[in-house]
Amino acid sequence: MNSASIKRRESRPVRVGPVTIGGGAPVSVQGMTKTHTEDVEATLQQIRELAEIGCEIIRCAVPNRRAGRALGRVVEGSPLPVIGDVHFDHELALMCIEQGVAGVRVNPGNMKDEDGLREVYRAAAERDIKVRIGLNSGSVKRRNGIEVADEVKDEDVADLMVSEALSACEIAESEGLRNIVLSLKASEVLPTIAAYRSAAEECDYPLHVGVTAAGPPESSTIKSCIGIGTLLAEGIGDTIRVSMTGPPHYEVRTGIKMLQALGLRGPEGPEIVSCPTCGRCEIDLRSVVQDVTDRLKDHSASVKVAIMGCVVNGPGEAADADVGIAGGKDSALLFRNGKKIRKVDASRLVDELVAEVEKYE
Amino acid sequence: MNSASIKRRESRPVRVGPVTIGGGAPVSVQGMTKTHTEDVEATLQQIRELAEIGCEIIRCAVPNRRAGRALGRVVEGSPLPVIGDVHFDHELALMCIEQGVAGVRVNPGNMKDEDGLREVYRAAAERDIKVRIGLNSGSVKRRNGIEVADEVKDEDVADLMVSEALSACEIAESEGLRNIVLSLKASEVLPTIAAYRSAAEECDYPLHVGVTAAGPPESSTIKSCIGIGTLLAEGIGDTIRVSMTGPPHYEVRTGIKMLQALGLRGPEGPEIVSCPTCGRCEIDLRSVVQDVTDRLKDHSASVKVAIMGCVVNGPGEAADADVGIAGGKDSALLFRNGKKIRKVDASRLVDELVAEVEKYE
Repeated sequence: MNSASIKRRESRPVRVGPVTIGGGAPVSVQGMTKTHTEDVEATLQQIRELAEIGCEIIRCAVPNRRAGRALGRVVEGSPLPVIGDVHFDHELALMCIEQGVAGVRVNPGNMKDEDGLREVYRAAAERDIKVRIGLNSGSVKRRNGIEVADEVKDEDVADLMVSEALSACEIAESEGLRNIVLSLKASEVLPTIAAYRSAAEECDYPLHVGVTAAGPPESSTIKSCIGIGTLLAEGIGDTIRVSMTGPPHYEVRTGIKMLQALGLRGPEGPEIVSCPTCGRCEIDLRSVVQDVTDRLKDHSASVKVAIMGCVVNGPGEAADADVGIAGGKDSALLFRNGKKIRKVDASRLVDELVAEVEKYE
Repeated sequence: MNSASIKRRESRPVRVGPVTIGGGAPVSVQGMTKTHTEDVEATLQQIRELAEIGCEIIRCAVPNRRAGRALGRVVEGSPLPVIGDVHFDHELALMCIEQGVAGVRVNPGNMKDEDGLREVYRAAAERDIKVRIGLNSGSVKRRNGIEVADEVKDEDVADLMVSEALSACEIAESEGLRNIVLSLKASEVLPTIAAYRSAAEECDYPLHVGVTAAGPPESSTIKSCIGIGTLLAEGIGDTIRVSMTGPPHYEVRTGIKMLQALGLRGPEGPEIVSCPTCGRCEIDLRSVVQDVTDRLKDHSASVKVAIMGCVVNGPGEAADADVGIAGGKDSALLFRNGKKIRKVDASRLVDELVAEVEKYE
């Protein structure tokens, strides 16, 4: 890997409405609504909010016919391509397709009716919509609630997921479906990484990457960033979803920031680089960072702002950024475009730094 | 990579007080005090708090002689091995060594006196203490405030860091020092990953891994988990520090959770696996997760608790965990050791789940 960019795995392009997954298209960020899908207004409101912050594809649960019937109106009002998420009942997947979704997600591991599932693949192929074949670690161990692999060892979960997923894809291809996206999520980081690495080698399907049931925001951010991040850094992953027991916009924001951290998505607004502070720091850096972040939250220009507590890495990082400060005793040095421009008093620090950033439009 | 465990890179063992870095020792978590080191009581208080939550090595800034003189008392009172962090002035590093530190960290890129630095290496070798040679991306571009590599392209930063670091190690070895730990932190994720990958191949020094100046907690967690996590998942990294503009215990906790997510450190207390919720969920899962987390915060047994909103992945994940629930309409199924034990009313959910977890000591 070159340190400035990631060489991405080659995958076949699959269209999801206006978005392409795979085939060299930018890695897209997906969200999932947490409303009841049949509450069309609440669902559309949530989709609009997620679209606003940069979400590119939305998925809605379709657990029953009521949700299935409502989906048409969601599709119609949604600014984003809509994926219907279906389990157990292939009729619901057919219903989604009739309602005009851009794609459906099925987990072949819990579809009771195999012929019915083939019908879903044929219907999707006919309408040229995509199907995500999404296995979860939970479902390779049990099918329809029955333990099928009692003795599956943890280290075999990934292999089992991949082989089951590829068999499912073979069936889908035999029904004429080409628009397949694959996902292999486990609730643990290592089997997730192992499963995607192996699938990445064994097929050319674009991969939807995520860690499932990752828990509340803090632990999900850690597990998702390690799991998804490791794969993305290796060039694996065409679309991502961060899953979190928390507000849906947290999930989308974390996904976007992850792509930005890896240079897979451009910056949006200022980026703050700041030091952890230590015994060297003579200014209240944490509150400077908080104040600057608050003051710049609606600033749209992509400016790199370094807020450094001392002269050790301060001038280096500050000079590398578009605008930066390196703290001293009761004052700080202000940098712009790599050049020291002046010394500012600690009391004027936030104002002067923000003023410099605001010169970037 | 086997999905159940990481094959770690081989590195030479380096002792830091009672802790070994490298040589197959468990990956250790480091913290850094954010107090003024000369405030011995405040510094020791912070060290004790970090030790309490699982920090294994502590670093203190030594920016001046006052801090250097105080370090002896910090070393004496500290429950953790203490590393003195020194920049610019080799005399301060010698002072740290005299004060009985377990190690010093120097950045050869900002040490003005090359002969002085050699003296530090010799003194460390004599006392058998470790030296971290810690380069930062900022310092390869400028030395003592002067731009030395005006035209360094982003993609060359990693290469430059590695070659400068290895030259510095050669000098240290020529002075008889063997206890060398290397770090190559950049404030961006990709050059950080690239630099460590390349160093991992080119030497056998244990690696101290981190992303520098990673910013406030949210963005630092994302950058650190991708940067450090990717390397750890590849077996690279012998000791880690998460750097955050925020409280020091956040840094340590994130580091520990990262190791746990990768199976590199055992669990401490309950682990909550919970679903993101979607249109399928009929219970207020987010508040269940919050309540259960709060109620179990002092529980010490390592129990895996799955809190799942519905029957899709619910039974699979819940059955995989030690204790779990899969939500239904106004009620949930309770699982223990993979077996469904009973249905519980939504109003009794938290109580019954916590009671089941508390059976594990």
